[in-house]
Amino acid sequence: MGKGGEVSEDGAKVEEENMAAWLVAVNTLKIQPFRLPPLGPHDVRVRMKAVGICGSDVHHLKTMRCAHFVVKEPMVIGHECAGVIEEVGSEVKSLVVGDRVALEPGISCGHCKYCKGGRYNLCRSMRFFGSPPVNGSLANQVVHPANLCFRLPENVSLEEGAMCEPLSVGIHACRRANVGPETNVLIVGAGPIGLVTMLAARAFGASRIIMVDVDSYRLSMAKSLGADDFVKVSMNNQDVVDEEVIQIQQAMGSDIDVSFDCAGFNKTVSTALNATRAGGIVCLIGMGRNEMTVHLTLAAAREVDVIGIFRYKDTWPLCLEFLRTGKIDVKPLITHRFGFSQEEVVEAFQVSARGGDAIKVMFNL
Amino acid sequence: MGKGGEVSEDGAKVEEENMAAWLVAVNTLKIQPFRLPPLGPHDVRVRMKAVGICGSDVHHLKTMRCAHFVVKEPMVIGHECAGVIEEVGSEVKSLVVGDRVALEPGISCGHCKYCKGGRYNLCRSMRFFGSPPVNGSLANQVVHPANLCFRLPENVSLEEGAMCEPLSVGIHACRRANVGPETNVLIVGAGPIGLVTMLAARAFGASRIIMVDVDSYRLSMAKSLGADDFVKVSMNNQDVVDEEVIQIQQAMGSDIDVSFDCAGFNKTVSTALNATRAGGIVCLIGMGRNEMTVHLTLAAAREVDVIGIFRYKDTWPLCLEFLRTGKIDVKPLITHRFGFSQEEVVEAFQVSARGGDAIKVMFNL
Amino acid sequence: MGKGGEVSEDGAKVEEENMAAWLVAVNTLKIQPFRLPPLGPHDVRVRMKAVGICGSDVHHLKTMRCAHFVVKEPMVIGHECAGVIEEVGSEVKSLVVGDRVALEPGISCGHCKYCKGGRYNLCRSMRFFGSPPVNGSLANQVVHPANLCFRLPENVSLEEGAMCEPLSVGIHACRRANVGPETNVLIVGAGPIGLVTMLAARAFGASRIIMVDVDSYRLSMAKSLGADDFVKVSMNNQDVVDEEVIQIQQAMGSDIDVSFDCAGFNKTVSTALNATRAGGIVCLIGMGRNEMTVHLTLAAAREVDVIGIFRYKDTWPLCLEFLRTGKIDVKPLITHRFGFSQEEVVEAFQVSARGGDAIKVMFNL
Amino acid sequence: MGKGGEVSEDGAKVEEENMAAWLVAVNTLKIQPFRLPPLGPHDVRVRMKAVGICGSDVHHLKTMRCAHFVVKEPMVIGHECAGVIEEVGSEVKSLVVGDRVALEPGISCGHCKYCKGGRYNLCRSMRFFGSPPVNGSLANQVVHPANLCFRLPENVSLEEGAMCEPLSVGIHACRRANVGPETNVLIVGAGPIGLVTMLAARAFGASRIIMVDVDSYRLSMAKSLGADDFVKVSMNNQDVVDEEVIQIQQAMGSDIDVSFDCAGFNKTVSTALNATRAGGIVCLIGMGRNEMTVHLTLAAAREVDVIGIFRYKDTWPLCLEFLRTGKIDVKPLITHRFGFSQEEVVEAFQVSARGGDAIKVMFNL
Repeated sequence: MGKGGEVSEDGAKVEEENMAAWLVAVNTLKIQPFRLPPLGPHDVRVRMKAVGICGSDVHHLKTMRCAHFVVKEPMVIGHECAGVIEEVGSEVKSLVVGDRVALEPGISCGHCKYCKGGRYNLCRSMRFFGSPPVNGSLANQVVHPANLCFRLPENVSLEEGAMCEPLSVGIHACRRANVGPETNVLIVGAGPIGLVTMLAARAFGASRIIMVDVDSYRLSMAKSLGADDFVKVSMNNQDVVDEEVIQIQQAMGSDIDVSFDCAGFNKTVSTALNATRAGGIVCLIGMGRNEMTVHLTLAAAREVDVIGIFRYKDTWPLCLEFLRTGKIDVKPLITHRFGFSQEEVVEAFQVSARGGDAIKVMFNL
Repeated sequence: MGKGGEVSEDGAKVEEENMAAWLVAVNTLKIQPFRLPPLGPHDVRVRMKAVGICGSDVHHLKTMRCAHFVVKEPMVIGHECAGVIEEVGSEVKSLVVGDRVALEPGISCGHCKYCKGGRYNLCRSMRFFGSPPVNGSLANQVVHPANLCFRLPENVSLEEGAMCEPLSVGIHACRRANVGPETNVLIVGAGPIGLVTMLAARAFGASRIIMVDVDSYRLSMAKSLGADDFVKVSMNNQDVVDEEVIQIQQAMGSDIDVSFDCAGFNKTVSTALNATRAGGIVCLIGMGRNEMTVHLTLAAAREVDVIGIFRYKDTWPLCLEFLRTGKIDVKPLITHRFGFSQEEVVEAFQVSARGGDAIKVMFNL
Repeated sequence: MGKGGEVSEDGAKVEEENMAAWLVAVNTLKIQPFRLPPLGPHDVRVRMKAVGICGSDVHHLKTMRCAHFVVKEPMVIGHECAGVIEEVGSEVKSLVVGDRVALEPGISCGHCKYCKGGRYNLCRSMRFFGSPPVNGSLANQVVHPANLCFRLPENVSLEEGAMCEPLSVGIHACRRANVGPETNVLIVGAGPIGLVTMLAARAFGASRIIMVDVDSYRLSMAKSLGADDFVKVSMNNQDVVDEEVIQIQQAMGSDIDVSFDCAGFNKTVSTALNATRAGGIVCLIGMGRNEMTVHLTLAAAREVDVIGIFRYKDTWPLCLEFLRTGKIDVKPLITHRFGFSQEEVVEAFQVSARGGDAIKVMFNL
Repeated sequence: MGKGGEVSEDGAKVEEENMAAWLVAVNTLKIQPFRLPPLGPHDVRVRMKAVGICGSDVHHLKTMRCAHFVVKEPMVIGHECAGVIEEVGSEVKSLVVGDRVALEPGISCGHCKYCKGGRYNLCRSMRFFGSPPVNGSLANQVVHPANLCFRLPENVSLEEGAMCEPLSVGIHACRRANVGPETNVLIVGAGPIGLVTMLAARAFGASRIIMVDVDSYRLSMAKSLGADDFVKVSMNNQDVVDEEVIQIQQAMGSDIDVSFDCAGFNKTVSTALNATRAGGIVCLIGMGRNEMTVHLTLAAAREVDVIGIFRYKDTWPLCLEFLRTGKIDVKPLITHRFGFSQEEVVEAFQVSARGGDAIKVMFNL
């Protein structure tokens, strides 16, 4: 069927055949040709094999924006991906053709104070797959710097490789919140991000993990994947926060040291703020409206620190080590799979947007 | 003149003469006798000489509560204080009668995980001057543990000693926010707490300090005390935050690394959140309503950490060192002085509550 | 058989029957009466049930000193202990008679800058069981502050309770060295301290642990208890360090992030210094001669930080949690058991001093 | 006078005229032509104006090695430098021709875990001016990445710009040792590195600084530059360490929190180890023999952390800010100046090697 990157009879590459999923307007994705940039000396060309759908992809599709990023012209979507090396630049020594790799999607400048200071995720010049105006990776092929492509261990599949991206969010959150064997963890929200955060917290040795959500299915999945216990809460307003906090604290049985909000609602953030012990940490992962009405003052007066996270930094090696050793198993999170046709792309995003039993929707290219 | 603690003709102490300012009802302070507890072997008895009025004292007076503390029965008010040792317990070796001392007002349990972990300010068993139900220190005499009484250097006055308490708030905030010579500091609110925070930030070597307030008088005082520059803002709603943030950032001239909110309003907190660079810190010192409506999400997504403070821990030695060396001069903050009569106590609290040109109101006993 | 602390026919306590193991001279231990101090309001009286022998006890016995501590008059030896509460002081609320408890042996002052700063193990006024001139706990009964007695979970034995003390050393070392799931750990020395450090590192989630020793028996025990691999080294001088470091690094297979020296010899410290990656940590736990000849300069020039540890702080709750959940099993470390008679005490210390297959020697009282 | 880089009559660059000081053999420097590498799109070509001599340059000259770096073929020496931009690469936007810049001498890979983790000074692929086999900057011109060239503020001279390099060592040391207003600092060794460390510690707000050396001239210079006091010590063996430590502690008058060893001898390191308070830090800056015989064990047992430093990271902006604001004045350190002729180069290195009153020897090109 002539995939992009193949070689025609006369030996020339047929680059026009590389196809990608373009976000062209609100709720409109089209599979169209995607001309690859030239391969630089430190780049590799990767044939995509597994690409997952992220909540931010759905947000882009629905609104043409995410946080302060606005889609102004057609853009290839997608950034959770893994594939196989098809070509390496002249200076690339770390990878060879045929290597199976997971791709870290963001290219930082390397020179600013954030890059020099070990927080390259905050680099203002970051170019990130599928974050406007940079094209993403839901495509037959992409060109990417070799140093952002990480070889998969033998026992790690390409789909698991693509899962390094969402898992990285959980790992970055656990690192920032300093989760370890002395940490009792509350996770509010048992969607994809809540679940990868739970898996990461478990791998960081968290003492006890309680999950909170409004959805029984997701809570039972959380428990089956390793949470110690859960509390089902209402979707109501903040009036019930106090009593639900008591239930949550009882489920924990001792102080809550770190809470992750993976939902982004006023109520969920207030729940996290009120439930966490003095001197603890509330980490905001879920993205909601910018203006939030939350119980901030008394939390601050108990020295509960409220920290956010933005993506991740230098997480792929650790992800792959966790996957290789089995300390983390992400396979149960992949609940739906699709091929890379126009119809399936449209349907896959609908399934992902629906939520519910769809945790992670994965394309197999 | 027969002050409390003197000795009658027959050699017995005349303890019933010890008088204190009792908070007996909303807006009602009465000078009444205050029977001292027995002097334990590790305690000292201190004749109070200088006691300042704190915003929390005013809050207690107006509402009989502060944060989650509620005044349920008459309580001696006051906690910013210094005095002279009149008697030492049998085991006290660090102090002698006649020593001039500043008093740290809170007694922690010493055994809980907070005390053991170096965060004794979060001790749940803390007994703190003038925080219900513990009596305060606006009295002729108090009994206090010797280890919480710090001898004043020769060149530090008793009034300056009393100022160690509010200054400690600024120092604790600067420690938690890690202010140093690489830190550009924004301070929102130029009242007493904003000013001590500014003095502390300066002493911690802050690179550049910009003050923000609605009051021209306080801003000019801030500048005369050491701020590099200031921006006068409106008292309006959050709609003008964005444009004021631009003015503030221009006044800074480079990234704002740490912002201190010393006001506690939705608008001031949002200003701090929006103005601070990615990866920076917003420290909430001002206490407002518990439920706040603030621009939290995008700040979290830039990894701006929001930290609160609760009082301070182990700050007196550093305060006294700063005062001794002249790195900090708190004397200009003392704008009003009163004696310790019923009329003066009432008037002093009125002056303090009015704000404006009244920064720190001090009793001389 | 009339143990100390029982009640005579007339109801009076027979305190003179409390017996203890006194260190009276070099290599001389005698079981003699030990008069208990009066029970303070915050104290408990504990009947000792399990007391382990520590290397420092042996060192005291052989030399009447350890580090800068010198035994100048007869002293009860021992500090690894657990027992049963027999009496509680008037203010004790956390414990009741009959509670099984593990005892943290050191009483800090609570007021110095170390105590206030969360490093109470460095308190200069520390009074510590069996550290001269403070009497230890190898006795029928001891009096101790209630807040240093930790109730054992139901599934944790008294012997395991006594093991909290040596285990605390490993936990404190892992905390200081920040061991976690991203840490490859080298442990030089597979004696009792090396083994508890290995168990602690495992519980803190260490990625990979390599043990080094000269003794095959101890190395095989280390592997059976959870080490990933080991390297047997020679006892020779530092000339072979370089080649052995290569073997060790090969056994690790990737960078060594943290090395614990649990032996205290010039050669073992140099091995740790040379083997550790740039920017890593070498933690010195083993105590050797004060003047050491080690390969320090190039390690410093690679920013390998050399940190020491002194005892531990606030580790008992975590120890008991690790024992309760089975994350750590200390029982295999207890290789020899003795009763509390004059003959057995002498023999037990001889066995402990011999080393070899004797890891932890435990008294059952 | 035809300096390298000028343009000949026919418009071609006369590159063969660029001259540099080549280290060709032990104790042999020769000024010879130095062919510049091609100017990359992100590079600039800088005409050198001020180049200082570092102790490591002298070490290279005398021994053809420094630490584990060995000079195997002729190499241009020098790395403390500032100059004027003569040409900018096609992609350079931050600098223009004529800009006066200080050069950070090391180019890191940007991709390894050290670079990603904020410790790029430990990058194993670092290419550093005058560190074999990379050519240095004692030359008429060099080509360097634009992002490592920092524009000088108007009031900062080119010589001061060259001083950013040694000053960076002091700044990096103060950062790693966390020097601030609560830090009493001991500096052992008052040579160039000891003095820049003292200036940096002062700028970081150190509470009190005591200098130690064997040379009265250097000690008096240290005091005139800002040290609070000094102690002159003997050059003898370690036998006198204990009594000298007492003198040093008396000169400090309170606990020594951080000690910098800027000498690298067994005795100086032992002095630092013994003098520092429990829980303090000893930072090793001076480079001596790799095998050191020092009083390490008791220091470790007091949790004195021994940290080293390797060069610096991201220090130029802070250096320039300190110089611009006058918080640091490095001009008095420049004690000798030379031109760039064969004779002067040889003499300058002799003067620098002699030490004594020669603190910093500077070339003006």
